[in-house]
Amino acid sequence: MGLHEFIQGLNNLETIDRAPGYFKYQQHTVAAHSFRVAEIAQMLGDIEEVAGNKIDWQMLYEKSLNHDYTERFIGDIKTPVKYATHELREMLADVESSLTNNFIENEVPKEFQDRYKRRFSEGKDDTLEGKILSVADKLDLIYESYGEIQKGNPSEVFLDMFQESLKTIKKFNELASVKYFIKKILPDLFKGEFSNRDKLQKVAWDILIEG
Amino acid sequence: MGLHEFIQGLNNLETIDRAPGYFKYQQHTVAAHSFRVAEIAQMLGDIEEVAGNKIDWQMLYEKSLNHDYTERFIGDIKTPVKYATHELREMLADVESSLTNNFIENEVPKEFQDRYKRRFSEGKDDTLEGKILSVADKLDLIYESYGEIQKGNPSEVFLDMFQESLKTIKKFNELASVKYFIKKILPDLFKGEFSNRDKLQKVAWDILIEG
Amino acid sequence: MGLHEFIQGLNNLETIDRAPGYFKYQQHTVAAHSFRVAEIAQMLGDIEEVAGNKIDWQMLYEKSLNHDYTERFIGDIKTPVKYATHELREMLADVESSLTNNFIENEVPKEFQDRYKRRFSEGKDDTLEGKILSVADKLDLIYESYGEIQKGNPSEVFLDMFQESLKTIKKFNELASVKYFIKKILPDLFKGEFSNRDKLQKVAWDILIEG
Amino acid sequence: MGLHEFIQGLNNLETIDRAPGYFKYQQHTVAAHSFRVAEIAQMLGDIEEVAGNKIDWQMLYEKSLNHDYTERFIGDIKTPVKYATHELREMLADVESSLTNNFIENEVPKEFQDRYKRRFSEGKDDTLEGKILSVADKLDLIYESYGEIQKGNPSEVFLDMFQESLKTIKKFNELASVKYFIKKILPDLFKGEFSNRDKLQKVAWDILIEG
Amino acid sequence: MGLHEFIQGLNNLETIDRAPGYFKYQQHTVAAHSFRVAEIAQMLGDIEEVAGNKIDWQMLYEKSLNHDYTERFIGDIKTPVKYATHELREMLADVESSLTNNFIENEVPKEFQDRYKRRFSEGKDDTLEGKILSVADKLDLIYESYGEIQKGNPSEVFLDMFQESLKTIKKFNELASVKYFIKKILPDLFKGEFSNRDKLQKVAWDILIEG
Amino acid sequence: MGLHEFIQGLNNLETIDRAPGYFKYQQHTVAAHSFRVAEIAQMLGDIEEVAGNKIDWQMLYEKSLNHDYTERFIGDIKTPVKYATHELREMLADVESSLTNNFIENEVPKEFQDRYKRRFSEGKDDTLEGKILSVADKLDLIYESYGEIQKGNPSEVFLDMFQESLKTIKKFNELASVKYFIKKILPDLFKGEFSNRDKLQKVAWDILIEG
Repeated sequence: MGLHEFIQGLNNLETIDRAPGYFKYQQHTVAAHSFRVAEIAQMLGDIEEVAGNKIDWQMLYEKSLNHDYTERFIGDIKTPVKYATHELREMLADVESSLTNNFIENEVPKEFQDRYKRRFSEGKDDTLEGKILSVADKLDLIYESYGEIQKGNPSEVFLDMFQESLKTIKKFNELASVKYFIKKILPDLFKGEFSNRDKLQKVAWDILIEG
Repeated sequence: MGLHEFIQGLNNLETIDRAPGYFKYQQHTVAAHSFRVAEIAQMLGDIEEVAGNKIDWQMLYEKSLNHDYTERFIGDIKTPVKYATHELREMLADVESSLTNNFIENEVPKEFQDRYKRRFSEGKDDTLEGKILSVADKLDLIYESYGEIQKGNPSEVFLDMFQESLKTIKKFNELASVKYFIKKILPDLFKGEFSNRDKLQKVAWDILIEG
Repeated sequence: MGLHEFIQGLNNLETIDRAPGYFKYQQHTVAAHSFRVAEIAQMLGDIEEVAGNKIDWQMLYEKSLNHDYTERFIGDIKTPVKYATHELREMLADVESSLTNNFIENEVPKEFQDRYKRRFSEGKDDTLEGKILSVADKLDLIYESYGEIQKGNPSEVFLDMFQESLKTIKKFNELASVKYFIKKILPDLFKGEFSNRDKLQKVAWDILIEG
Repeated sequence: MGLHEFIQGLNNLETIDRAPGYFKYQQHTVAAHSFRVAEIAQMLGDIEEVAGNKIDWQMLYEKSLNHDYTERFIGDIKTPVKYATHELREMLADVESSLTNNFIENEVPKEFQDRYKRRFSEGKDDTLEGKILSVADKLDLIYESYGEIQKGNPSEVFLDMFQESLKTIKKFNELASVKYFIKKILPDLFKGEFSNRDKLQKVAWDILIEG
Repeated sequence: MGLHEFIQGLNNLETIDRAPGYFKYQQHTVAAHSFRVAEIAQMLGDIEEVAGNKIDWQMLYEKSLNHDYTERFIGDIKTPVKYATHELREMLADVESSLTNNFIENEVPKEFQDRYKRRFSEGKDDTLEGKILSVADKLDLIYESYGEIQKGNPSEVFLDMFQESLKTIKKFNELASVKYFIKKILPDLFKGEFSNRDKLQKVAWDILIEG
Repeated sequence: MGLHEFIQGLNNLETIDRAPGYFKYQQHTVAAHSFRVAEIAQMLGDIEEVAGNKIDWQMLYEKSLNHDYTERFIGDIKTPVKYATHELREMLADVESSLTNNFIENEVPKEFQDRYKRRFSEGKDDTLEGKILSVADKLDLIYESYGEIQKGNPSEVFLDMFQESLKTIKKFNELASVKYFIKKILPDLFKGEFSNRDKLQKVAWDILIEG
């Protein structure tokens, strides 16, 4: 029906909760997560630029803002399912791109289709902007899980999320923005008082110093 | 860790919403849905028995109560994804059974493992109890979508759900309980006053009389 | 109007919260509680059977699944009210059965009335299945209150609930399933880390060893 | 422990929902209801005073503000239960006053006990202030049910509430404030546009003109 | 349109959350806050009266019950904005009174306008009742922030609220009711067990003993 | 404390509801609104570019994404308050920029301060990107109010919002993107069936054809 459908779809992203199936003190929707990731990517982009690296800002914003729009079509497929086998992962990617293309062809007017194809394809590529998106996505997960741990959530799943996210970020530690995060932002997470603080700090430490 | 983990998992089913991504006036969790399906299956079982058919009640309750427990492991995979290709469907089924087996082997003590394997495998088989489960699952979806339509939800998706569910139920219309539902329960849905009543009734009618 | 009313009533059970009037991090509805109790009863039934005792599975599922349906008619009457005097308790039981009978006679078709009378009467009788229901109902309350204590709920009421529930369960400790619970499941509640863990464990200990 | 317990109890009234078991677009807690009834009673008191009747404002505010505080002790006992027999009603009233007295004796310091006894006893007596409380309590129920009907709630229960409340108010139609409400406030409820408006207006009309 | 609009406005107060922008375990609406403040003011009024001071109960109830009704017109203006400069504060007060007068002139019938003008003007004046309102408003904020601290809320903002509120209350410590609160009620807040108890008690101590 | 505070502030934007004080079927937070406005601005930017106009994409994304971040400092000041007098509006703008500068100076490291100053200042300037932001902000309000009207919200306030927003958008109708919206997107809002559809369409019509 046209771009009306694209706008209506934003509504859907406001009603999909992140990490369904776990008790959380504070819910985050896919819409709010997308906003957060774009803001965090902007912050990381600043750091890169100040460090002398060139940022393609249009691509950075575009990638981060739209990176989860397609959850509207495929839903939230859990990580253990998605990554079960290489074959399954490829098949799911095929289904995702076919559902997405279907939406683009039926709802998006011809003259805009290329733009939406680009926006709804995998943004986490090898460009600097793609790497920043990978980091920003995980950095938001660090803050989501940190928020739960800090409020006293007894579920182990949030410590796992924190750990996995930090490990992924560390893989990008050739980036100036990752170096900055580890050195100047991360330590602030352990400044307030909360019951699991020391444990959390040790977890972070162990990841960062090993290797 | 043992059966403690099985009980804790019930908590998860209370925090997974059905049909994420659509605005709903009234949310239903997987836990509540499971309760509803077991109650509806019991009602359908009554009808079959009164009609002279033998019900294996243990199997009927067991199948209906546990039919969505494994959503805890695989999450909510959207229908268009699940059914995209025959191959993908089989692969997802494999992943589901492997995650489920993994849970059973790690958490369920040996002496109970066979029972949980049976309960967590596909319950919608060709037995009368399996067929009743298929009908009860869709009948609950009819009531979920009916509740939204009746409250004035403008999204077309609930009319589609209603339609698809009724079509599936109709496929089982050799069952005494389906005949009873269509003749004696369904008409009551159109008795109250609400704005889309006539449209909904026509939709139901068209499905039931065609063929 | 027929069985339509019975199904609509399931909706009501999804909107009645357990223990209204106390702040809780996680709400539980009567529908979710009913699902949980049926799952827990199934687990206890397994244990009994493996221990060599015969279970009437139809009765066990039926009792546990339906044990709170009548809350729809009478609402949540607080324990201190219900148990104030023997006379009042009997009178309230009379009103409950009269409201329930009223529903059955007006809404349930004749041929099914006996079944609903059985299901909506007191299920906690002296049969093995009745005893398991008593235990399962309290075991769920243990997990509900445990969930709050573990998340840091400062209200004393949840410690009281935990205590009362464990005391009631202990009264049934001739059952194989209760022995199993105390020996093999309960200790897992004290394995994670949370601020009141030691206090809670002591409370449990004091109940179990006294006498 | 003293007045600290009285203040903490206000928290409880913020977590008890009115009319549990019915789907509502907008929830009202007992705390919010108490605020509303006191505001409405104040409005009705104005009308009486302007009409030349003397109001004991201390009593009017005290009665309306505190009229549901004891729900904290006894919970929400449904009308059909409460009014089943005269005997039961008296017994429940006894339990309520015994639980309330218990609270007063254990928590409220001696020098304030008489005040709380007065505030927590039945306020709907034959004084003008008692009558205004009766009217204000029902008038709030009229607005609660009106809010649901106006938003399209398909449940018949809200039309029943509206009807019962208006009937009760009508019984007090010797009061200047009731006359004013019927003549100058009620008609405004039917001014906006909503689907059941005409039906609702007819319901009101039928009650007001009969007899 | 008349008093109908006044009653409808109560609905609005039920949908305005206190302190938007901070994560809270338990939300409080302006309606619930108004109820709480009126109950607390009543409690403080008792203490004053028992101490031999005369209370104008009509004024005390009227002031406390209505003190935040005008938030409906002006919304929640944050403290740092409101108090930025003396000039801005006066201008905002002018806008508030102009919006309020506008409502009174358009919606409230002539014969009641004076009453609403009095109720919607600043209640925190130099009368004993005005002072009690100032104390009750802060005392409720103490309980709101205490509730969060006690449940483990890691945000510093609630400790600040607690501190600021206690400081303000202390300024009124010539009042018998404030003396009573500090001596007989406040110590009960530190009786239960929760992680920040000692810190909170020290904060209170430091405020009360300095000077 | 550095950029940690900037990220934590995103949390706040997830807990501020838009338009507090009005009953809504679906809540929107400031975080979700920011996401939506950035997505809509991107869509409008596409239309401009396809129409041959040059877009500074960095500025367009930056403006739209960050346009409400400062609500965190100043809260939600209602339109009638904000626009009461020219003088007040200027004073509030001064306070906003002083609170914002305060945050930037205390929390944002020196090397990034200029960027945040630009992002947190008024984005709705006379550049094409500034105009698109003005349109996108109102277009989102059109969809928010449309969502309520379509679901049957009886409050007149949403019709007012719809009307005011469309009037503002019309002022920018020299823009290619506004022409496109009016011609190709707006008509789709009136395609589904809902009770106030004809009234809403007439409202839109009257605005668009007058003058």
